Amino acid sequence: MRVLSGMQPSGRLHLGNYLGALTNWKTLQEDHTCFFFVADWHALSTNYEDTGLVTTYVRELLIDWLAAGIDPERSTVFIQSHVPEHAVLQLLLSMLTPVSWLERNPTYKEKQEQLEGRDLSTHGFLGYPVLQAADILLYKADAVPVGKDQLPHLELTREIARRFNSLYTPVLVEPKELLTEFPKVVGTDGRKMSKSYRNTINLSDPEPTVRQTLKTMVTDPARVKRTDPGNPEICPVFEFHKIYSDATVIDQVNEECRTAKIGCIDCKKFVADRVVAQLSPIWEARSSLEANPAKLDEVARDGCDRASKISRQTLEEVKEAMKISV
Amino acid sequence: MRVLSGMQPSGRLHLGNYLGALTNWKTLQEDHTCFFFVADWHALSTNYEDTGLVTTYVRELLIDWLAAGIDPERSTVFIQSHVPEHAVLQLLLSMLTPVSWLERNPTYKEKQEQLEGRDLSTHGFLGYPVLQAADILLYKADAVPVGKDQLPHLELTREIARRFNSLYTPVLVEPKELLTEFPKVVGTDGRKMSKSYRNTINLSDPEPTVRQTLKTMVTDPARVKRTDPGNPEICPVFEFHKIYSDATVIDQVNEECRTAKIGCIDCKKFVADRVVAQLSPIWEARSSLEANPAKLDEVARDGCDRASKISRQTLEEVKEAMKISV
Repeated sequence: MRVLSGMQPSGRLHLGNYLGALTNWKTLQEDHTCFFFVADWHALSTNYEDTGLVTTYVRELLIDWLAAGIDPERSTVFIQSHVPEHAVLQLLLSMLTPVSWLERNPTYKEKQEQLEGRDLSTHGFLGYPVLQAADILLYKADAVPVGKDQLPHLELTREIARRFNSLYTPVLVEPKELLTEFPKVVGTDGRKMSKSYRNTINLSDPEPTVRQTLKTMVTDPARVKRTDPGNPEICPVFEFHKIYSDATVIDQVNEECRTAKIGCIDCKKFVADRVVAQLSPIWEARSSLEANPAKLDEVARDGCDRASKISRQTLEEVKEAMKISV
Repeated sequence: MRVLSGMQPSGRLHLGNYLGALTNWKTLQEDHTCFFFVADWHALSTNYEDTGLVTTYVRELLIDWLAAGIDPERSTVFIQSHVPEHAVLQLLLSMLTPVSWLERNPTYKEKQEQLEGRDLSTHGFLGYPVLQAADILLYKADAVPVGKDQLPHLELTREIARRFNSLYTPVLVEPKELLTEFPKVVGTDGRKMSKSYRNTINLSDPEPTVRQTLKTMVTDPARVKRTDPGNPEICPVFEFHKIYSDATVIDQVNEECRTAKIGCIDCKKFVADRVVAQLSPIWEARSSLEANPAKLDEVARDGCDRASKISRQTLEEVKEAMKISV
């Protein structure tokens, strides 16, 4: 099965991204032919006014992926903007995509409201589901891992593929969804971990930062003194235990917090040790990648070459189907 | 001065196109660096449902251009879809082009009404001025020959260039209009010569067809019999004389028609001889091009190579200005 997924280069990845998307990608690459791409053109649709960090983020994203275990031999790892066929297929598909399909895309209005400081009434932002369709259809992906909220986008891709296939000849593959339940990862303030809340622990944070961040993270607010009993059910640190600790430790913490037998400092220390243990190989891989930019370039070049070969092939089929192959 | 102009591949060229756009191009190429391109992607914006003839028309257009005297050594003659940078720049510019600019484009609603049988409410049709802007800006054209009705499009290109230059660094050139008065060429039915009226004389029509078409063309409807005096002012054939005949013949015809000294058959014969004289070298060039498809391919390849070099260079500058050059 061909699986495709991408991420926008919008900053360094955090534990939420790691435990959500990346570990899922790692599992997928075991059994499937995977395409993972940096969606740098998509980043422009919301950030065209402030592009200063895009190239840095592209490299950081690649470093995070590889350090986290995405295997560029096994999977095709590439950068969208290095494969111009994405723009060409986007242009061709835009010719047959009704504006009304794009306007009724739920995230179109939503994002405009969320990011109200930015002017998102552009032709490019309106058309980003068309670019997304091109990204997926170019590789004839059978499946795309998505959360529930992204289902309408994937449906739009399928609709565009169906319209193409019925207007011309059926060369495009309608991708299925690989509905993925992403674990809820809380941030250091108890809300969902998210860059925009500034409550993240990043894969690139050094150990002292990670330990310090965990040490100062929010706990049960009712537990003011060491001797106060706590309530793990409302404590963000306990959420970390559920992800990182084994059953024995979870049971122990659950009990000893409620009876004030264990203090928050110790409780956090358990978690920190596990997080550090998980991140240590990633840190190692990161620093070796950072020390060897030529290696990173080579990986990107190789991935883009492989992606180009497939996308050129599909684009040829598309042009033949449309009878526009001069 | 760099001058750029394009035509959609929508059929064989007729005398109206020749006397309008093509002779103008021939004059322009004498003194300027010219880029003439087949806008085959644009043809899709209105014809995506029926693309069966696009590739034939692309070749026919190139043959017509070259046969009519467009010199591919002097001018860069190329096919839009062979230069993927057009799609990439279109994508980048779409990110910063407000939908409202496109909606207020007068031809957007107009064409939708004109071509009401077709579904033109697509993202691609809405965005065709963005593709047009990319076509022009990619070559840093200083000037674009336009008729009055196309001025709003060129203004849109300038607005997009200005927006880009002010958001990033000024690398794009705002093209000036080369306001062109195209001569009115009447068709065989007295209306404007136009493919959609089926009243054309095509550059590719063989001599017997041209003579037969001119022989049967509409004249002053009041002149029924040979002996009736005619009124050249309302006779389409006289319009042809104004274009094709010299002053002596025009004066002679003007007088002898009014006095029924000359009949319509003779009058038309004068015109036919001149039209045939003008078309003869074009027919010769056409048949030698048709007999040598490899030559045509070579011309197209060479033109596309030259266009690619320039467009890649501009696109690099664009990416650097946007700081997205990975």
